[in-house]
Amino acid sequence: MNLNIIQPTLLLDKQKAIQNINRMSEKASRKGMAFTPHFKTHQSADIASWYKAFGVSKIKVSSLKMAKYFAKNGWENIVLAFPLNILEIPEINVLGKRIKLDVLIVNKESLNALKIQLTSSIGFYLEIDTGYHRIGIPSTEIKTISNLLEMAKENQHLQFEGFYCHAGHSYHLDSKKDFKKKFHQTIEALKQLKTHFNPDFSALKISFGDTPFCSVFEHFDSVDEFGPGNFVFYDLTQQQIGSCNYKNIAVAMACPVIAKYPERNNIVIHGGGIHFAKDSITINGHPFFGKVVNFDPSNSISWSNPIEGVTLTDLSQEHGTINAPDSFIAKTKIGDILTILPIHSCMAANSMGEFLTLDGEIIKMMK
Amino acid sequence: MNLNIIQPTLLLDKQKAIQNINRMSEKASRKGMAFTPHFKTHQSADIASWYKAFGVSKIKVSSLKMAKYFAKNGWENIVLAFPLNILEIPEINVLGKRIKLDVLIVNKESLNALKIQLTSSIGFYLEIDTGYHRIGIPSTEIKTISNLLEMAKENQHLQFEGFYCHAGHSYHLDSKKDFKKKFHQTIEALKQLKTHFNPDFSALKISFGDTPFCSVFEHFDSVDEFGPGNFVFYDLTQQQIGSCNYKNIAVAMACPVIAKYPERNNIVIHGGGIHFAKDSITINGHPFFGKVVNFDPSNSISWSNPIEGVTLTDLSQEHGTINAPDSFIAKTKIGDILTILPIHSCMAANSMGEFLTLDGEIIKMMK
Repeated sequence: MNLNIIQPTLLLDKQKAIQNINRMSEKASRKGMAFTPHFKTHQSADIASWYKAFGVSKIKVSSLKMAKYFAKNGWENIVLAFPLNILEIPEINVLGKRIKLDVLIVNKESLNALKIQLTSSIGFYLEIDTGYHRIGIPSTEIKTISNLLEMAKENQHLQFEGFYCHAGHSYHLDSKKDFKKKFHQTIEALKQLKTHFNPDFSALKISFGDTPFCSVFEHFDSVDEFGPGNFVFYDLTQQQIGSCNYKNIAVAMACPVIAKYPERNNIVIHGGGIHFAKDSITINGHPFFGKVVNFDPSNSISWSNPIEGVTLTDLSQEHGTINAPDSFIAKTKIGDILTILPIHSCMAANSMGEFLTLDGEIIKMMK
Repeated sequence: MNLNIIQPTLLLDKQKAIQNINRMSEKASRKGMAFTPHFKTHQSADIASWYKAFGVSKIKVSSLKMAKYFAKNGWENIVLAFPLNILEIPEINVLGKRIKLDVLIVNKESLNALKIQLTSSIGFYLEIDTGYHRIGIPSTEIKTISNLLEMAKENQHLQFEGFYCHAGHSYHLDSKKDFKKKFHQTIEALKQLKTHFNPDFSALKISFGDTPFCSVFEHFDSVDEFGPGNFVFYDLTQQQIGSCNYKNIAVAMACPVIAKYPERNNIVIHGGGIHFAKDSITINGHPFFGKVVNFDPSNSISWSNPIEGVTLTDLSQEHGTINAPDSFIAKTKIGDILTILPIHSCMAANSMGEFLTLDGEIIKMMK
C-alpha cells in the first residue's frame, strides 16, 4: 500500500492490534476469566468491533461521555470505570435506562447522593486500592467496605457487582523484584476480600485490569473479570516496563521532516505536543518522547524496531526535535516521513482523534 | 451568573483576555509596531473577532489546518508561522489563491521545492535563530541568508517579506540576568540583520513574538511586526517567568471533586492529562500541574489568586490529584467544583476544544 502522508498521522497496524487483543483474550479464557477490556485507549467504535470476534460484550470506559458514545454504537453492558462524579447522576439515570450500566464507588458521599437522586437500576463496584494510592478504598479497610455495602442495600436501584482494582502502581518503573511483589500483594489482597465477602455476596466479582500486570503474569487467582486497555496498542512505556516487545507496539506517528541541523545532530519534524501529548521517559536524567523506526509509507508493510540512537528528544506545540547520529541525518531528506513509536499510546491517540491503518483506512475516534 | 458545571470545563474570563489583548496592542502602537498576534493559543474564530477592535488584520498561525480555518472565517492576511512542510505545497497553492499567505523558510531544499511546485503568489519570511536553537537560520550566517535570498529571486511567485524570530529561549527558567541578556542579544542580532539587508530589500520587516520577551520589555528597536500568542490567556509558566501576574491569567479549569484522602492530604478530581495536557513546572525537584484558586460557579465573577499550598500534583488520563492542607480538605465536599490555573494554556485549550465564559457562553475552537 502506498500511504500519502503529508501531515502528522497516527498509523495503526491493525494486524498487531488484533494479535494483541487475541493474546489477552486467550489468557483470559485459559484462566477462566471473563475478558472485559477497557476502551479508553482507542475510543473508537470501529476498533471496538474487532473485539466482538473474541466474544467481548462487557466493556469498561473512563468517562460518561465515552459510555454514551459506545452505548450509541451498540454496546449494552458498560462499566463507567471512573469513580462516580455525583454531578453526573441525572445523566446516569438516562443512560442506565437504556443499557446495563455499572459505576465505581469509593465513598459514602456517593452512595448518599445516589440514594437521593438515582432513578434507574445500575450496578456498582467498590474500587479497591491495593497500593497505587491514587483512589479507592484500601483493601485492608474491611469495616469501611462493610459499611458501604450496608448503606448500598438501602437503595433498591443499586446492585453490588463486586470489587474493582486498577493496580496502577505497576507503572512505576523500579526493580523487577518490586514489580512481582506488588503484583502478588495485589492478588492476595483481592483474594482475601473475596473470601471475606463471598458468604454474604456469592455473586461478587473481582474486576482487574492494568496492562503491565495483565501482560506479564499468568496466574490471577480470584480475578473474575480481566480487562486492561492499553495492551491493544502498547507503547514505549509498556516496552520499558516489560509488558511487551517493540514488535507488539501497534501505533506509530508518521511526521514530515522540516529541517536538519547536523552541527547539533538534530532533525526537526512537524509533530509536537498536540500530536504526541507530552508523556516522556527519563533515562539517566535525559527525557525522551519517542523512538524512530524504519518505515516506508510507499510500501506500508510494517515498521522496524527502533533505530539505535534516533530519538525524539524535545516537543513544543507543533515542532518535534529528533537527535540522531551523523549517518542518519545525512541520509534523511527534507520532506521525508519519519515514523516514531510513542511513549503513551492512550494520550497520543486521544490527541490525534483518528488513525490511518497500514491498509489506508481512516478510523475515527469519539469526538 | 450561575454556571452549571458537571464535568471538566475550561473557563474563560473574557474581560481579562480583552485586557491582555489591549495591553499588548497598546505596547505595539506606542512603539510604532504593527500588532500581528499569533492565534495558536485560542484557535477560535469567536476569540479572533475580539482582536478586530484593536485593528488587527494580519495574524499568525502554527499549521496549515489553522490557516485554512481562519481563512474560512474571514481572515485574509495570514502568516503560516511554521517552517514550510514541502509536502503541503499543493494545499498552499490553493490557499494562496484566496488570501495573502506568507510562509517561513529555513533552508534551500524548501526553496527548491517551491520553485518546482509553487503556482500561487505567496510571501515568505526567513526564520532566524537568535539562540533558541529549535529551528531557523543562525542570525550570524549572513552568507547563508544571502544565498537563500538570491535563490528566492528566481521564483516569480515568491515575495520576500522579512525576518521572523520566535525567541523561545525566553521560556527557559533561569536567572533574570540571563533573561535580559538573551533579549538584548536577540534584538541586537535582528537589528544587525535588518541593517545589513535593508539596502537591497528596503521593505523587509522584522517579525517578532514570544510572550515572555514581548510582555516584559518595552524597547524592540528594529522590530516592525509584534505578535506573541500565549499572552491572550497567560498561564502559570508565564507567571513563573514574570510575563504576567496571577490576576492576568484568563483561563482556569473547573473540575468536580470525586474523592478525598485526608490521611495523605489528597483530593481527587475529574480532570486529567486529556484535559490539562501534561505540562508541568518543577520546583525543588517536585513537579506540579496547576494551582487551585477560589471560584464560585454559582456566582461567577472571577477567581482569586492561587490558594497557598493547594496544588495539582499528579495527572493520569482522567484523574487529577490535588495536594492540600487539612483545613482545605476538611471544607471541600465531594461534588464541589475546584478551579485550577493551568501550566500551559495553549496546550490545555487545545486539549479541551472549547471554553465556557464567565457569562455562560460556550466558545468553540477549531476542530
